[in-house]
Amino acid sequence: MLLTQTISQIRAQLKKEKSQGKKIAFVPTMGALHEGHLALVKKAREIADVVVVSIFVNKTQFDDLADYQKYPKQVEQDLELLKNCGANYAFVPESSEIFADDFAFKLLPIKLTDCLCGSPRIGHFDGVALIVSKLFNIVKPDIAIFGEKDFQQVAIIRKLVEDFNFDVEIISHEIIREKSGLAMSSRNQRLSEGSKIKASEIFKTLLEIKAEVKNSPDQCEAILQKHREKLLQNGFEKIDYLEIREEKNLELVTNFKTVARIFIAVYLDGVRLIDNMPL
Amino acid sequence: MLLTQTISQIRAQLKKEKSQGKKIAFVPTMGALHEGHLALVKKAREIADVVVVSIFVNKTQFDDLADYQKYPKQVEQDLELLKNCGANYAFVPESSEIFADDFAFKLLPIKLTDCLCGSPRIGHFDGVALIVSKLFNIVKPDIAIFGEKDFQQVAIIRKLVEDFNFDVEIISHEIIREKSGLAMSSRNQRLSEGSKIKASEIFKTLLEIKAEVKNSPDQCEAILQKHREKLLQNGFEKIDYLEIREEKNLELVTNFKTVARIFIAVYLDGVRLIDNMPL
Repeated sequence: MLLTQTISQIRAQLKKEKSQGKKIAFVPTMGALHEGHLALVKKAREIADVVVVSIFVNKTQFDDLADYQKYPKQVEQDLELLKNCGANYAFVPESSEIFADDFAFKLLPIKLTDCLCGSPRIGHFDGVALIVSKLFNIVKPDIAIFGEKDFQQVAIIRKLVEDFNFDVEIISHEIIREKSGLAMSSRNQRLSEGSKIKASEIFKTLLEIKAEVKNSPDQCEAILQKHREKLLQNGFEKIDYLEIREEKNLELVTNFKTVARIFIAVYLDGVRLIDNMPL
Repeated sequence: MLLTQTISQIRAQLKKEKSQGKKIAFVPTMGALHEGHLALVKKAREIADVVVVSIFVNKTQFDDLADYQKYPKQVEQDLELLKNCGANYAFVPESSEIFADDFAFKLLPIKLTDCLCGSPRIGHFDGVALIVSKLFNIVKPDIAIFGEKDFQQVAIIRKLVEDFNFDVEIISHEIIREKSGLAMSSRNQRLSEGSKIKASEIFKTLLEIKAEVKNSPDQCEAILQKHREKLLQNGFEKIDYLEIREEKNLELVTNFKTVARIFIAVYLDGVRLIDNMPL
């Protein structure tokens, strides 16, 4: 695996690969890699000739400076993990390589963002759309792979690709979980061992809601409200949302004729945790 | 020359060309082609293996609906001209092929736009940045060529390429003029013969200002003001701007240590005409 740190370096390498007709799969990450990320890299390895993984903690997508500063960094370990998963290129740029001080544009998603993580995290998806656009232009992959834990992010990126005509196939990968059911996340590192056990209640809550809604689809909101209260009673500090929405347009479900999903974001130990599950 | 009308069609063709290592030059146009456009196509022919020209009247860059509706259309004649200039592909999509009703993003240039054509034409450069981004992603050219009549547009596109890491070399081409000195423009078609003669005064004005500013650089604003008054006296209906600005950042010139240019936008017969000249 080759470590590249500049745009010209990764471009020169990939130009060679493309000139040989190789298919390139790209996995953008913010590092602090876990089994969830590695599942994306392994998927990339299966379906493409060349696997590129970026590690870049994108400041523009953090609505909370403290969250950005606390975001775990472990590049050496990440590179070792990537090598073992068969990645061909790691792209690990400095912040100044990606963002110039005189940046002159705003890229604003105006749909799919006024709900779920978009409402509490002002500007978050602006930052996501921007960095994904830039990375797509730098790497010019045939395929890009994203995890479904950030389901709303994947929906917005699919729309970005459609609306801006990026010639990239977007593949999403199901959520990878700890044995306890807790969705893998770099932020889990910031949980105490006790909180990690408690956090597994998120997954159990989703399973319970799924079963209960199946039995009583007309009791949807009452079921959700009961679980919101239960989570708060059980020590979760705050619930940003616990909702059922359509997969395609992320609108609140009014009937179950559409493909729907349960979405949750809660705080525990001051750490924001998200998860989702298809109904 | 092959006429393509869908994104998948032009992509499939260019994929074949790229797989053979051919260098692609792209000239985006709104049609109603004149010698100015053809100079860009000829330049493309000189420096690349494959020349792609798009014809698309981009509604999103018109601040004035009437101007959009009156914008000249002559696709048959345009295609004939392109063929004779050695273009390989014309890309002439329907509006619905480019813009879906549920478009979900805003792309806003926030620098270089609060002056010159940006101030009177609200949203104009948003539309330019958007269509250029989309066309770059569709065509994925190595080189794109733009005319310097729209000097501010070229500056914004250069910044777009830099800020979003488009892997495209931007080349600008000097203004092509009628024998009278009038800058070639598709909108010139809307001038009466008498007005065309009068419109040549724009070029003469720029030449005079250039000479006068050279002699009296400290009298810059007085010289410009004299010419503004003269143009209005001579039947130009309105002056949007007549200014001297730096080429790089488009800021008003405070001294002549930077590379500067005279910029003008005036109305004649209800038609907005622009021009510029290096000092």
